[in-house]
Amino acid sequence: MARKLRMGMVGGGNGAFIGAVHRMAATLDGQIALVCGAFSSSPENSKATGKTLFLEEDRTYGSVEEMLAGEKSLPESKRMDFVSIVTPNFLHYLQAKAILEAGFHVVCDKPITITIAEAEELLSIAKRKNLLFCLTHNYTGYPLVKQAKYLVQTGSLGKIRKVVVEYHQGWLSSPIETSGQKQASWRTDPAKAGISCCMGDIGSHAENLLEYITGLEITSLCADLSTFVESRTLDDDSNVLLRLSNGAKGVLFASQIASGDENELKIRVYGEKGSLEWLQSSPNELIVKWNDKPTEIQKPGVDKAYLCEEAKNACRLPSGHPEGYIEAFANLYKAFAATISENKPVDFPTIEDGIRGLRFIENCVKSSKQGSIWVKNN
Amino acid sequence: MARKLRMGMVGGGNGAFIGAVHRMAATLDGQIALVCGAFSSSPENSKATGKTLFLEEDRTYGSVEEMLAGEKSLPESKRMDFVSIVTPNFLHYLQAKAILEAGFHVVCDKPITITIAEAEELLSIAKRKNLLFCLTHNYTGYPLVKQAKYLVQTGSLGKIRKVVVEYHQGWLSSPIETSGQKQASWRTDPAKAGISCCMGDIGSHAENLLEYITGLEITSLCADLSTFVESRTLDDDSNVLLRLSNGAKGVLFASQIASGDENELKIRVYGEKGSLEWLQSSPNELIVKWNDKPTEIQKPGVDKAYLCEEAKNACRLPSGHPEGYIEAFANLYKAFAATISENKPVDFPTIEDGIRGLRFIENCVKSSKQGSIWVKNN
Amino acid sequence: MARKLRMGMVGGGNGAFIGAVHRMAATLDGQIALVCGAFSSSPENSKATGKTLFLEEDRTYGSVEEMLAGEKSLPESKRMDFVSIVTPNFLHYLQAKAILEAGFHVVCDKPITITIAEAEELLSIAKRKNLLFCLTHNYTGYPLVKQAKYLVQTGSLGKIRKVVVEYHQGWLSSPIETSGQKQASWRTDPAKAGISCCMGDIGSHAENLLEYITGLEITSLCADLSTFVESRTLDDDSNVLLRLSNGAKGVLFASQIASGDENELKIRVYGEKGSLEWLQSSPNELIVKWNDKPTEIQKPGVDKAYLCEEAKNACRLPSGHPEGYIEAFANLYKAFAATISENKPVDFPTIEDGIRGLRFIENCVKSSKQGSIWVKNN
Amino acid sequence: MARKLRMGMVGGGNGAFIGAVHRMAATLDGQIALVCGAFSSSPENSKATGKTLFLEEDRTYGSVEEMLAGEKSLPESKRMDFVSIVTPNFLHYLQAKAILEAGFHVVCDKPITITIAEAEELLSIAKRKNLLFCLTHNYTGYPLVKQAKYLVQTGSLGKIRKVVVEYHQGWLSSPIETSGQKQASWRTDPAKAGISCCMGDIGSHAENLLEYITGLEITSLCADLSTFVESRTLDDDSNVLLRLSNGAKGVLFASQIASGDENELKIRVYGEKGSLEWLQSSPNELIVKWNDKPTEIQKPGVDKAYLCEEAKNACRLPSGHPEGYIEAFANLYKAFAATISENKPVDFPTIEDGIRGLRFIENCVKSSKQGSIWVKNN
Repeated sequence: MARKLRMGMVGGGNGAFIGAVHRMAATLDGQIALVCGAFSSSPENSKATGKTLFLEEDRTYGSVEEMLAGEKSLPESKRMDFVSIVTPNFLHYLQAKAILEAGFHVVCDKPITITIAEAEELLSIAKRKNLLFCLTHNYTGYPLVKQAKYLVQTGSLGKIRKVVVEYHQGWLSSPIETSGQKQASWRTDPAKAGISCCMGDIGSHAENLLEYITGLEITSLCADLSTFVESRTLDDDSNVLLRLSNGAKGVLFASQIASGDENELKIRVYGEKGSLEWLQSSPNELIVKWNDKPTEIQKPGVDKAYLCEEAKNACRLPSGHPEGYIEAFANLYKAFAATISENKPVDFPTIEDGIRGLRFIENCVKSSKQGSIWVKNN
Repeated sequence: MARKLRMGMVGGGNGAFIGAVHRMAATLDGQIALVCGAFSSSPENSKATGKTLFLEEDRTYGSVEEMLAGEKSLPESKRMDFVSIVTPNFLHYLQAKAILEAGFHVVCDKPITITIAEAEELLSIAKRKNLLFCLTHNYTGYPLVKQAKYLVQTGSLGKIRKVVVEYHQGWLSSPIETSGQKQASWRTDPAKAGISCCMGDIGSHAENLLEYITGLEITSLCADLSTFVESRTLDDDSNVLLRLSNGAKGVLFASQIASGDENELKIRVYGEKGSLEWLQSSPNELIVKWNDKPTEIQKPGVDKAYLCEEAKNACRLPSGHPEGYIEAFANLYKAFAATISENKPVDFPTIEDGIRGLRFIENCVKSSKQGSIWVKNN
Repeated sequence: MARKLRMGMVGGGNGAFIGAVHRMAATLDGQIALVCGAFSSSPENSKATGKTLFLEEDRTYGSVEEMLAGEKSLPESKRMDFVSIVTPNFLHYLQAKAILEAGFHVVCDKPITITIAEAEELLSIAKRKNLLFCLTHNYTGYPLVKQAKYLVQTGSLGKIRKVVVEYHQGWLSSPIETSGQKQASWRTDPAKAGISCCMGDIGSHAENLLEYITGLEITSLCADLSTFVESRTLDDDSNVLLRLSNGAKGVLFASQIASGDENELKIRVYGEKGSLEWLQSSPNELIVKWNDKPTEIQKPGVDKAYLCEEAKNACRLPSGHPEGYIEAFANLYKAFAATISENKPVDFPTIEDGIRGLRFIENCVKSSKQGSIWVKNN
Repeated sequence: MARKLRMGMVGGGNGAFIGAVHRMAATLDGQIALVCGAFSSSPENSKATGKTLFLEEDRTYGSVEEMLAGEKSLPESKRMDFVSIVTPNFLHYLQAKAILEAGFHVVCDKPITITIAEAEELLSIAKRKNLLFCLTHNYTGYPLVKQAKYLVQTGSLGKIRKVVVEYHQGWLSSPIETSGQKQASWRTDPAKAGISCCMGDIGSHAENLLEYITGLEITSLCADLSTFVESRTLDDDSNVLLRLSNGAKGVLFASQIASGDENELKIRVYGEKGSLEWLQSSPNELIVKWNDKPTEIQKPGVDKAYLCEEAKNACRLPSGHPEGYIEAFANLYKAFAATISENKPVDFPTIEDGIRGLRFIENCVKSSKQGSIWVKNN
């Protein structure tokens, strides 16, 4: 398709965090242009945001419904191709449903919906309408995550025996939501975040990363969720024992009260012959360890002969030029655009991943509520 | 200015490296749009590149002259605002001159020109025409480089006594230019790169970083330049002793034959009370060391209370979300755009920095040729 | 006491590992001399070892009994003061009992005995005979472990909420015990190692370190022990959820099949205000993280003003001279000698720590055998 | 020789630093016993020190002369075998001369003497008397330094092109010698330290390490020595350009005013095919980098198959048990003892290394005094 794809956005008004990230990520490679948006539940904020983004005035809408009607009334040569949903969790379902029903592809922030039933409904609509749905489990976009997946799945490490995956943050160590911090407010509010705060927001990233890299499924789990900050109702810390589909064991722990930690998503995968280790805050090093050879540090770069094709393609720069979070995020949009424009195979997280994530969150909450007992996860 | 700035580009055709970086950096923040270009000395490649970039066909030009003529014929509401020059060194002078004379602002890759006289002429044209000129010493765009500058220049470290700055790469360890590697070919060719390869290409980044962070000038130097790969005429390694304007001493060394190193630009600044250390390949850590307190690791983030304003403004993401080379590069474009659109003060490297860089390169070559003796540098 | 203490040794014949460590550690500070030993169940090996160690020939004994008889027959001015037991686990009980009954102080490798009842009996004998007993949980001897303990227990980090402690090794990734590797053979043999391999050998170090630094007790646990190498009967991997005495939560995991890992004992302690992190393989850095200040790296050194007294006293060298495993181990002997010679208060692990360790191991095995359910640990 | 070697010591009285290190290093492996000493120019301090060390009272001497006379009067079966000299620089020459003339082997702290003539005289005496002389350039005792030497000298890295060696400390950032700090006082005093402080004390370690690992000689140099703290007469900082015997280039810099640095001795060696990097404050990692393969981290351990024999023999512990400064130091004593007892070949630094070190120091001072010009170094 010899043109840029046209993106609409729901959410991401001035003041939001993740909306701006989606916009930078979507447009980084020059394949996608933002053309319209319903940026806020406040029409004024939506208008103001559209202005900041230099959009045509009549394509900054006051609501999703208005946006869908407005865009459908435009000639196909101008109309948006897909919509990015970057609103709080509880809004995803109805918004995505409306967008799909209107015939547009969707990119949606995670978690996909509040309930599994909602997600399954979205899946069936998307299938029926033959539309694409990308769920932004963005950490899978890092080049060295793709290299890690490659090393595991081509058997370099031998049969996998153990996985340790963790995601520690400290920003909710004190009850900042009580003094109006916007990001904290909705994430700690069951009405907006769903049944879990810590597992829903970041634990699900850890789960997704584990399954992406190893190709294994979590078959049962035993979760100990805690709420350390008194005024809260949802979990802000969690420790989970895992059993995986090939007989491997695992540990997953996540926290939002890990004082001093910023965004420490780390995975370690141990096989019979070797192991690997990757840390999101130092994303340009993949540590590979062997029983009988020196430890290796693998690095990214479009010119790195030892990387697999998927990892090289996920780089934009030669060796030694660090890429980061925005570039990794952009790799999801790049893959999404390629599937739309060039019919390339799907290489981004989908509704199915979202459903697995929700099932994991539900089962963690269920396990924990029943006294941290073992529950099946499939 | 309630619109995006419009950028033209010279160079950066398909296959080039730095052109794509400039495009990503320029457009990252949604303040600049690429509207036209003369991407290659081959009109076919230029056309093909324009197509890949989804430009209007009649704004992909075959030469700078054609581009200047074409754009000037457009109504002001459509015409480009500035031009980015991303060609090899030897082309900068004539291209920049033509663009400035035609009344457009310029962003130019470093080194600015081959000779100081050329750069001084550009300076005088830019002044006469009241135009802006940004030289992309991109490493100064990193948030923690700005924090380092702040720590030094507000006196936190005490009076500066010593600076060690280094830039080691290994990609020219063997004569890859003889088998046609494009990046290597022009950099090792005196006709295209000028009087120096290693000092011109990367030593000048080290020099610029030293002066940017410390605010000191290199007043004299003693340089030992080497050419280790036999087929070469220009230097591929260099070691330089420095004396700085406040009485401090320094060491600068750079190499393109440092096998196994990728892009190791590192600076250490030692003051009477403390010291700092920053490494480009791990750009999200600023090490600050004290004689009597624990070593500190300072990190970036829009929400980091202990960072100076300049550093915080150079971040796009909250703590723990790594940013990299493209984002640092984008900070130069962001500052350039802000000066054009909002009359913000100049906060990007300029022709004056370019002239200092050329003088440094010239003096290193002069020192080395005369037996590595001390020469004045101001 | 104006003389060196005299040490006897049980075990540690030529070919053993930990015996040599005990000898270096005991004598490092010039306060203790090895004077006799029953180094091996083979009298020939015992004799040969004594010769290598330059002992008087008639003080190299063929058995513990012979050693006790021999030493008691010597004049007090020559007789050994205490005995170090460095034999495999299953021998500790009877040997320690005999030595205590004969009136000598004991240093003993961990785990103290196979059963809690045995350890309790040793405790009652030691009390009755008024003898000292040092259990070599050697990792508590590191200066920065003492500093960590100080930071936690003086409240610098605020109330503790979460602890993650791990001990990963890879040396048992394949069944090396089947080809006669001596260290592996007894550790994987239930008759010599007891009910657990991985938890007994290294998990108990992790448990001890957690309790030493935090001063908290593990009140209940849920353990998932695995045996990945088929020919084995005992566990070679384990993952455990913990609940601690102040309401904090914890995760402890240990492995001997973590391919490529050497001896990765790591602890992280999270409080309301800050957190700390210490890794045995990089023992001279204590990472201290805060929600609102730069991360700190604290380092050892006799001259480090910011260290607590216990940490400074555990150093032998000024800043920047790395100390390691032997020096940390020696700190236990130094404290033990000081208690004997100068009546200094006990500052080394004791039988009580050993009993807590055994209870932890027993409960982990019990939990795991019953389907990885929660069990009380006090 | 079926007995421990007997060591005497000159210097190292209570309050000194390096004497205690020598004692721990000498006795660590159970092959050497301290039997006598003249620990201080104050006979009282000497006596008190001997008492602390549990020496026989009549073998704590008031002077070197007294010690030599006393020991020679003892039967050979009791008499010391060698003497360790751990006094300030200016005393080495006369003490070593007397000891050699009296027929005892010598271990001596570096730098060997104040002048080259003195060192050459010691060399001729030692040769005439057929005595061994070990100069404690202790950093060459680290296992991974031996592995680095092996990698370079067996050609793994290809022909060496560049070496960067540095030794940065910050402890002399302020004039602590004026308030009586003992270590600082003699080092900054020309009468006791000789013609250089920084180069003599630590620069010479850097020079020795470079020559040890690479087997190359420094053939000419250009040195810029500075005295930053006003009250001083000797250098406290230095930067030196080097040319090496095979045509390679080098940079050596050292500092005692590098605020916040502790003991940062680091070497980087670049060959045509790869490079290596070793840092004393993190001694258990050897970084090996390649142009076309992942970076390697080599680690120590008696059981590490990929290490050369010399490196493995320099370890006492299995992988993952960090060894440090004392153990590396002890490796010099171990080699020295092996040469005496078992006629093993010399594998420790000797007078010849000391003479090369002095020549290097002299030439640095000479270069710097003449305006930092190039001078020959052989």
